[in-house]
Amino acid sequence: MPVIGADELRHKTAGLFCSLGVPPEDAAHVAELLVEANLCGHDSHGVIRIPQYARFIRQGQIQPGSTLEVTVDCPAVAVVDGRMNLGAVTMLRVLDMARHRADRAGAYTIFVRNCHHVGRLGAYTSRAARAGYASMMAVNSPGSRCVAPWGGIDRRLGTNPLSLAVPAPEFPLVLDMTTSVVAEGKIRVHYHEGRPLPEGWIIDAEGNPTTDARAFYAQPPGALLPLGGHVGYKGFGLALLLDIFCGVLSGMGCLRPDLTAGQNGVWLTLFRLGAWVSRPFFLEEVQKLCDWIRSSRRQGGVAEILLPGEWEARTMRERLRHGIYIPEETWRQILAVASEVGYSW
Amino acid sequence: MPVIGADELRHKTAGLFCSLGVPPEDAAHVAELLVEANLCGHDSHGVIRIPQYARFIRQGQIQPGSTLEVTVDCPAVAVVDGRMNLGAVTMLRVLDMARHRADRAGAYTIFVRNCHHVGRLGAYTSRAARAGYASMMAVNSPGSRCVAPWGGIDRRLGTNPLSLAVPAPEFPLVLDMTTSVVAEGKIRVHYHEGRPLPEGWIIDAEGNPTTDARAFYAQPPGALLPLGGHVGYKGFGLALLLDIFCGVLSGMGCLRPDLTAGQNGVWLTLFRLGAWVSRPFFLEEVQKLCDWIRSSRRQGGVAEILLPGEWEARTMRERLRHGIYIPEETWRQILAVASEVGYSW
Repeated sequence: MPVIGADELRHKTAGLFCSLGVPPEDAAHVAELLVEANLCGHDSHGVIRIPQYARFIRQGQIQPGSTLEVTVDCPAVAVVDGRMNLGAVTMLRVLDMARHRADRAGAYTIFVRNCHHVGRLGAYTSRAARAGYASMMAVNSPGSRCVAPWGGIDRRLGTNPLSLAVPAPEFPLVLDMTTSVVAEGKIRVHYHEGRPLPEGWIIDAEGNPTTDARAFYAQPPGALLPLGGHVGYKGFGLALLLDIFCGVLSGMGCLRPDLTAGQNGVWLTLFRLGAWVSRPFFLEEVQKLCDWIRSSRRQGGVAEILLPGEWEARTMRERLRHGIYIPEETWRQILAVASEVGYSW
Repeated sequence: MPVIGADELRHKTAGLFCSLGVPPEDAAHVAELLVEANLCGHDSHGVIRIPQYARFIRQGQIQPGSTLEVTVDCPAVAVVDGRMNLGAVTMLRVLDMARHRADRAGAYTIFVRNCHHVGRLGAYTSRAARAGYASMMAVNSPGSRCVAPWGGIDRRLGTNPLSLAVPAPEFPLVLDMTTSVVAEGKIRVHYHEGRPLPEGWIIDAEGNPTTDARAFYAQPPGALLPLGGHVGYKGFGLALLLDIFCGVLSGMGCLRPDLTAGQNGVWLTLFRLGAWVSRPFFLEEVQKLCDWIRSSRRQGGVAEILLPGEWEARTMRERLRHGIYIPEETWRQILAVASEVGYSW
């Protein structure tokens, strides 16, 4: 049963999270975000995460139903403790809070600590864009480190991703990128498929460049390289500074060997467009810039110049029409979770 | 007379700008920032800019003495019109304003339009860091476009730089990076020296990779590539989104063929540390992270792992001691400006 419609997948996923003890409204939110990740082509952040989240819930690392605590409350910035609820639940609430506050103050920033796996940053920044805000979001991951510093060999930093998004006439422009060359999930896909990696992604445990994905998961392990290739000090600098903004300003911390992978410190800033830039003016300026960029001649073999978020918008249209393909192994794992909690999928 | 002490260079440069009609306090600020760029090793943003600024002043593109106008004033964000004063003068005032407002609101963002060449972003973010703020700054450059979009050939975007900085125990951690592979100035240095470029920096007018710096300045011209090499869609996405934040939210615009190079739309955000994170806690967390990063084994040929801003801090100590070397041609041009306005250097 490998291809499922989005509505059914969302409905069933929500039911499964309910069976795991997640309140119905929260379960619907998690299901919405997981299925959205599949819809827009980022399967690594989709329903493949169900078994992992289920395990964290049972082990008590994720605490469904816990409420947000606002620990710092200033006119332009707040700090929120997510108390280890599901990251999607925490972040949708935080986004709501940031929107209301940005409506009053023109802009608003929220740092979040004790936030479990937020998933795709673009899920939140694109929502902000659709609601009429320009936004920026970054996270660190103090419990999981897999990126070498510039000039170094050992794993020292997380992939610390960054997202920027704005409303645009055709689809929200959404940048959602790691500060390492690629996300860890892309190494994993090559590893599972036994395919060699492109050059410049990882080094082995001794610091030698390699295209063998197994070197990344060996003991001792290899490391991801920072974004930038020959100017990788840029990706390294970004990862380091974002670690500090997300980790220290949120109070989450930067180095937490006590944390498991996927727990995030978060930086989210929203700007309310209508506060000083009219929406029509904004959209017109953005459209002019997009047209100008697309008017460039293309390099050989490039069919068209894609804007940030464009591939995701197309994939979503496609998958809404034709359904979401679930690989057999993922499907088997999801059914196993369902069976363990007596949920009839 | 190629090596000059920082104090003398600063004093003389300020005097020269006074002779160009800049009010004494503003002249001192411009001189301070130009000489600081030389001190920390970024000669491309140092006193080499004097002839260029002098020309813009005479042509009326820079309007010394003009006052800031606050056009939007919200609790968490403001928009300021720099009215084409010298960028350094505008930005030091904007920084001051952002500091006072962040003291009240915990954080504050200012967008600036009609700001002339700001120079090094790190000059402002490092000042914020020394004063106890974590900060972010980005600019676009709507009059000068030299970067190709991902998959494209033609110049469509500026080098749209980004800076993040925080206080740290040894020296402020300051990231200051373009979203293209390198800044245009680095191409120019290779061009002047007749040296081949490293691979992956530019393409020629037909989109072919080249290491010949002349191709960048030919007619038709080549283009810089976005940051990221094989994942250059990341640098492209960053440049595009920052263009919109800095250009549209400031009201400066993104596409302005009427503007000359170096006029900036600015995004500056400050977070006041003491508002919720104690300074000792912050510095301790940052030091732990820095120690952890430096504890990595190093790749062959790497003497030490340098943190963002570390090379600049060292170069400054060195040049404060031994003076600043001014290349003959730069020196000749500065003396020519002085002679034209009857300033006795």
